[in-house]
Amino acid sequence: MSTARRVVTFEGPFRMHRGGFIESPTLAYETWGELNAARDNAVLIFTGLSPSAHATSCAEDPTPGWWEDMIGSGLPIDTDRFFVICVNSLGSCFGSTGPASVNPDTGEVYRLSFPVLTLEDVAESAWLVVKHLGIDCLHTVVGCSMGGMTGLALCVRHPDSTRAFISISSATRAMPFSIAVRSLQREMIRSDPKWKKGNYKAGKPPITGQRLARKLGMITYRSAEEWVQRFGRERSTTHARLEDQFAVEFAVESYLENHANKFTGAFDPNCYLYLSHASDLFDLAEYGGSLRAGFKRLNLERAQVIGVRTDILFPIEQQRELADGFASVCADTRFDELDCIRGHDSFLVEMDAFRPVICEFFDACPP
Amino acid sequence: MSTARRVVTFEGPFRMHRGGFIESPTLAYETWGELNAARDNAVLIFTGLSPSAHATSCAEDPTPGWWEDMIGSGLPIDTDRFFVICVNSLGSCFGSTGPASVNPDTGEVYRLSFPVLTLEDVAESAWLVVKHLGIDCLHTVVGCSMGGMTGLALCVRHPDSTRAFISISSATRAMPFSIAVRSLQREMIRSDPKWKKGNYKAGKPPITGQRLARKLGMITYRSAEEWVQRFGRERSTTHARLEDQFAVEFAVESYLENHANKFTGAFDPNCYLYLSHASDLFDLAEYGGSLRAGFKRLNLERAQVIGVRTDILFPIEQQRELADGFASVCADTRFDELDCIRGHDSFLVEMDAFRPVICEFFDACPP
Repeated sequence: MSTARRVVTFEGPFRMHRGGFIESPTLAYETWGELNAARDNAVLIFTGLSPSAHATSCAEDPTPGWWEDMIGSGLPIDTDRFFVICVNSLGSCFGSTGPASVNPDTGEVYRLSFPVLTLEDVAESAWLVVKHLGIDCLHTVVGCSMGGMTGLALCVRHPDSTRAFISISSATRAMPFSIAVRSLQREMIRSDPKWKKGNYKAGKPPITGQRLARKLGMITYRSAEEWVQRFGRERSTTHARLEDQFAVEFAVESYLENHANKFTGAFDPNCYLYLSHASDLFDLAEYGGSLRAGFKRLNLERAQVIGVRTDILFPIEQQRELADGFASVCADTRFDELDCIRGHDSFLVEMDAFRPVICEFFDACPP
Repeated sequence: MSTARRVVTFEGPFRMHRGGFIESPTLAYETWGELNAARDNAVLIFTGLSPSAHATSCAEDPTPGWWEDMIGSGLPIDTDRFFVICVNSLGSCFGSTGPASVNPDTGEVYRLSFPVLTLEDVAESAWLVVKHLGIDCLHTVVGCSMGGMTGLALCVRHPDSTRAFISISSATRAMPFSIAVRSLQREMIRSDPKWKKGNYKAGKPPITGQRLARKLGMITYRSAEEWVQRFGRERSTTHARLEDQFAVEFAVESYLENHANKFTGAFDPNCYLYLSHASDLFDLAEYGGSLRAGFKRLNLERAQVIGVRTDILFPIEQQRELADGFASVCADTRFDELDCIRGHDSFLVEMDAFRPVICEFFDACPP
């Protein structure tokens, strides 16, 4: 299979934010469009927890990316105008170094010997990629979900790294409902006897725990309102009630079953644990002792916050908090509160709502 | 330990709503106050999924009940005025026949050979208890959470069984978000290798699955808003991070841990599966083909619907639907939409909000 993925290895130890280091990490990334002569048209995209760097298709790799309808010629993140970069997060398993990678010092897979991962580490390692591409200052950082917090980590630590910031369905930090959900997802995986404290055998991952975690994920990624409209009390037509009376009966149970089947196998369980945990740990208020102080460290010319009314994982109150925070330090801040019904996942599936507001943001940028 | 629990066994086969029967079921119940000469002052309380019949304390059993501050002399459900009955649901494990009981026909514990349980069965068996107590028509049925649906099952099948109905944080039927949550809770238990398709050994229940299910329960019983206020990003002080970096770190994780530890062991896993499934199955619209037709079968003089703004399991839209439905057939319907922040559990913990409105309902009843 053809790939547009590039990799770069940064020789030497990479110091981790919470202690420890990893030796010579590799980062996978993709780019679209051309860097201009002034090197000031680069847009960096930070992903949510699970996507790879393959945000959209290209000639080299025509398989659809995770944000296919957002990035491209004539699309809101316009590759005729911008040089677009997407990095696979440090700690993930799609080409970048993570718990599923071999530790060059030992020749063994890291597994739980990988140091505690934070979004600061994800941001700093992506920043190395940006500099490797010869860019000193980004035009815009776009962060979706967890990626919005990663973007904040970059901007608060390197205030001159970007001129603009778009935060999509993200937060300044996780609140207890989201922490509880993610903690429970991790416990589902850790409770699976096949997890073996991270030492699961090749081909024998803790699939049961992963399936449960994915189902809980879907419950929090979508919205009750969407499901009332979409499923109501419809019965499943695709799943037979094989096992016992408690097996799939309702359409919504079939839907979760299908999603769980798709996801498991695609993502390394230990990588998932590390990235999920990193999402809980990030807190903008750690920079200066308060959110207010954290925002004060930013140096942005323009900011946009996009949030969705039905999001229960990164709820609309947290979008308002972000918008107020950016506005307190950056006059040119816009807040788009979208009335989508698909909850947190809306930025991936309700493109007709998201495209126009992102388009407007870039259209308003000086050329 | 002294107990105020009474039991009654109904000899002969009890036909189940979805087919099959159970032989000579026993029902456990408690009562408080005195039945008057006219036998028209009885209040029947249908519980949520997990409580026993011990709704409040009494001389015989001074241990606090699950609704201690609601029922008693001078309290909203006033035992000076009413004869109050609470039945342990059929299918539960606190004295009533359920999957953990011995099948008298075989001498073996039912386990999964117990027929599919519905809230219709819970209602019909409780109705037998009411008749056993010499009561033809109840003054009021009070149904909390799942118990509200059980109450609807009773009223739609026996329109003359009660003159008044109070529905608390309940619904006409489950919607997909709640079905998804409960289905996932059941899958957590069923996925635990110790479950053994319902044949877990004595003293070796599927504790891991039960713990996960209880934690997901707590996440949906409370509210994100409460937890922001209560925990924020506080760290746990009670749980050491023993196992690995993914063990308890935040206060909210400690809280879930404590609740999981309290619940498991107290409830039989198979009984939980049956009652949880029964909650998904009930649908008032099955009576006549639509909710409208279902409501039309009711024959109530007075109705009250109490719901909570922050409830995500039985959301406020479903409370409005109930209130509108009752109002369409019963002129004397009141709807109390409470601004409690503790979500679905508010009726158990925000007594200062619930007591006055229930008090008002009974105060307005003709003596």
